[in-house]
Amino acid sequence: MKFVGEHILSVSQFARSDIDRLFAVAEKMIPYANRKKVTRVLEGAILGNMFFEASTRTRVSFGCAWNLLGGEVRETTEIKASSLSKGESFYDTARVLSGYSDIIVMRHGQEGSVGEFAGASRVPVINAGDGANEHPSQALLDLYTIRQEMLGRRKKVDGLRIALIGDLRFGRAVHSLCELLSLYENIQFTLISPKDLSLPEKYLTLIKERGHQIEESEDLHAGIAKSDIIYMTRTQEERFASQDEANKYRGLLRLNQSIYTEFCEPNTVIMHPLPRDSRGEAQELDEDLNENPNLAIFRQTDNGVVVRMALFALILDVAEQIEVSSRDVNWYTERRFN
Amino acid sequence: MKFVGEHILSVSQFARSDIDRLFAVAEKMIPYANRKKVTRVLEGAILGNMFFEASTRTRVSFGCAWNLLGGEVRETTEIKASSLSKGESFYDTARVLSGYSDIIVMRHGQEGSVGEFAGASRVPVINAGDGANEHPSQALLDLYTIRQEMLGRRKKVDGLRIALIGDLRFGRAVHSLCELLSLYENIQFTLISPKDLSLPEKYLTLIKERGHQIEESEDLHAGIAKSDIIYMTRTQEERFASQDEANKYRGLLRLNQSIYTEFCEPNTVIMHPLPRDSRGEAQELDEDLNENPNLAIFRQTDNGVVVRMALFALILDVAEQIEVSSRDVNWYTERRFN
Amino acid sequence: MKFVGEHILSVSQFARSDIDRLFAVAEKMIPYANRKKVTRVLEGAILGNMFFEASTRTRVSFGCAWNLLGGEVRETTEIKASSLSKGESFYDTARVLSGYSDIIVMRHGQEGSVGEFAGASRVPVINAGDGANEHPSQALLDLYTIRQEMLGRRKKVDGLRIALIGDLRFGRAVHSLCELLSLYENIQFTLISPKDLSLPEKYLTLIKERGHQIEESEDLHAGIAKSDIIYMTRTQEERFASQDEANKYRGLLRLNQSIYTEFCEPNTVIMHPLPRDSRGEAQELDEDLNENPNLAIFRQTDNGVVVRMALFALILDVAEQIEVSSRDVNWYTERRFN
Repeated sequence: MKFVGEHILSVSQFARSDIDRLFAVAEKMIPYANRKKVTRVLEGAILGNMFFEASTRTRVSFGCAWNLLGGEVRETTEIKASSLSKGESFYDTARVLSGYSDIIVMRHGQEGSVGEFAGASRVPVINAGDGANEHPSQALLDLYTIRQEMLGRRKKVDGLRIALIGDLRFGRAVHSLCELLSLYENIQFTLISPKDLSLPEKYLTLIKERGHQIEESEDLHAGIAKSDIIYMTRTQEERFASQDEANKYRGLLRLNQSIYTEFCEPNTVIMHPLPRDSRGEAQELDEDLNENPNLAIFRQTDNGVVVRMALFALILDVAEQIEVSSRDVNWYTERRFN
Repeated sequence: MKFVGEHILSVSQFARSDIDRLFAVAEKMIPYANRKKVTRVLEGAILGNMFFEASTRTRVSFGCAWNLLGGEVRETTEIKASSLSKGESFYDTARVLSGYSDIIVMRHGQEGSVGEFAGASRVPVINAGDGANEHPSQALLDLYTIRQEMLGRRKKVDGLRIALIGDLRFGRAVHSLCELLSLYENIQFTLISPKDLSLPEKYLTLIKERGHQIEESEDLHAGIAKSDIIYMTRTQEERFASQDEANKYRGLLRLNQSIYTEFCEPNTVIMHPLPRDSRGEAQELDEDLNENPNLAIFRQTDNGVVVRMALFALILDVAEQIEVSSRDVNWYTERRFN
Repeated sequence: MKFVGEHILSVSQFARSDIDRLFAVAEKMIPYANRKKVTRVLEGAILGNMFFEASTRTRVSFGCAWNLLGGEVRETTEIKASSLSKGESFYDTARVLSGYSDIIVMRHGQEGSVGEFAGASRVPVINAGDGANEHPSQALLDLYTIRQEMLGRRKKVDGLRIALIGDLRFGRAVHSLCELLSLYENIQFTLISPKDLSLPEKYLTLIKERGHQIEESEDLHAGIAKSDIIYMTRTQEERFASQDEANKYRGLLRLNQSIYTEFCEPNTVIMHPLPRDSRGEAQELDEDLNENPNLAIFRQTDNGVVVRMALFALILDVAEQIEVSSRDVNWYTERRFN
């Protein structure tokens, strides 16, 4: 993968060497994301942040990553406001919108829509989620988080023991993460889910073919015992035939501090693609974990910013120019906690 | 109050010395807000303008104030598009969103929501309205306007005679303004409202305890006769049990030019937190007042920009740096009228 | 027309000399819109991009044009979020919002609304569409496209032969384009529409009075035979009494590659104000024309950016300053195709 000028549509585009390169650039972005330094490398460039489906966090994360490189953001936030609803094709929309910006980030509820759009776009396109299909930057930030957390514990991603928990059937974040992890060596996957929500055969096959180990289980306590990472997910309720159907799974698999203390090795990392459902009957990750320093869920979203900055910088070929226009931040930036 | 790094959640945080300091900075912002000069002091900084409830004017005013300091704005405009609707807690939303920006302005319909959010935020938060509770920057811009209008008439806020008119029960703008004015000396409040919409006991007590005078009345004409400021409000119709209930009060208290001429002292200032209801049956401030130079309602919204600039500058500790990157404006800025 | 400080509300404001001046500035904008160069001439200036009616493309095009000049954009995208829905007058909205920005672009569904707003605004206002009335920048970009396409074919706008096809009754783009073209010499209009959707008398009269030729026809094939430009439109379905009524006209007039090859002169230009309706039963411009180099529809939207940049630059009096802060672009800008 050369990155420069390329679309980012799927995690399957990435070889391990691409990931190493991306993460090396992401690390260089940390002082900018942490507001120690300012760079203006993309001053004058425009991001088309095209969200044809609701999303605050992903939309703002991409916009913020772009702003931190010095660029401007033009945005849309709903499909009803778009010509797509007057019968316009993705081809036309892409030809038009790609005349307005230097790069496009797009989310749309329809599987394959972003790829179709990218086929007609005159500028690089990043898939920020196309229905049940892919959301590659989420998987990349998850993998980057795993790498950073392991580094902090003097471990590597190779040899990782990870427990994937919850709705493994519908969660696209889990699917893409499995695919990326399979590029590494000797990963031990523990899959914990209700039978009807188990990981699709396609991913099981991929993982096995690439020489990793899989253990499937419905027992949370046994499953999390020997893990470096616990990756918990919420039930993708919007994918079920009915709310009643979805409710059957709500609250079945929960982690809280006392379970963590009793069953996990010390310093086991807890991750979640967020949002976590904090309503009483769900609570897949109990709020009593909030003070646990191994809870990495907010480091994940922070990492999303540097990973997205790195994607932008590589695609637009400015990764080597970041420091040219760099200077120290001149305003208050003392954060309350990390 | 030290301002630097602090949340702005309530007018009760402010002592009189804080207000004096804030307004001194606000005055320094005038040439920038009036487009005589440009400053880039916050170039590279990001505002998270998080409006989980509809508002054009307040949202744009905050965004504009930030832009005038040189910073970038990331924004959200509806609660449906947010993870809050998928069961996410304010704690999680705050932990995530505060990783994206240098400061957050937040509006949400639920009382206390912004305070809860601020408790978990890693960056300073400004409350832009949390339901019936508070909207402190509105009260600050009202007070700043009173001060500026009095200055222009060679008077002071101390000793002010102010008539507060309309729905004094539900209007949060009025409540916060009363609290701020009570920090000054010897204010004479005239409260004019239908009995059922009178000022809550809590504020009456506060005003009296701090040694000010109160007169309550249902008679508009007598009430406005000896005032420096007339502060008119619209009925907060959305707070009533039914539209029928709200309609009982519509149009009861109206000011127009002939009433003004007959009953007011010369140069009595007319204020309103806006929007004013200009439908025929409401018209608390008649449009025939539009040419009256004492109608200060659009100076109020203009003042909102400099007051918000000052809040940003003090919280992020750049008030002393504004002029470092200052230069003259190079484009057309001749306004049609003020 | 002096441009500086003026509102742009209607194409009737433009004399031919104004258009010549506007288009000369637009041509100077090409290297900036094509991302060869960056200018920061409006750094620190704010656009109020006020869309009280849904529109992605026009809104983003204006915002992008402004960003390309170095300015910041504050935006609104829906009427429900505005004080207009609480009974506020256009006068009040304009007085308030014009305190926030250096220029306002406004769209609103109600005819005449933007003019009323402009009457009270303290900054210049550009009409981006007020219901069935006007959308002058669309007509200007259409005319600019005609001029550029003719130039490329060593022809002029004077003497142009243009076929206007489809819903000529409700399409405001067509109406305004007719008015602008009538400023030139000796235009031959061929009007092709169902009888009930023919061009209103008002425009027929104007065209004739100014000495141009009109031919009306219901026969597409004959009508397009001797044309320099084919300007195709979609049926404005939202203007009909019912969907059934609108459906009567759907798909009646269609152009595809085989009709083009059989009936048109070589290099006849194909235009459309977009969006085109690509649903099977409509398809006024078949997708098999996408590879036809004479299909100018995406050059039209690209031209929208430079024409809007030129409007901004002339109104704010910076057209002569563009190059002062100009520099080469430092990021990847290789477009995939034009």
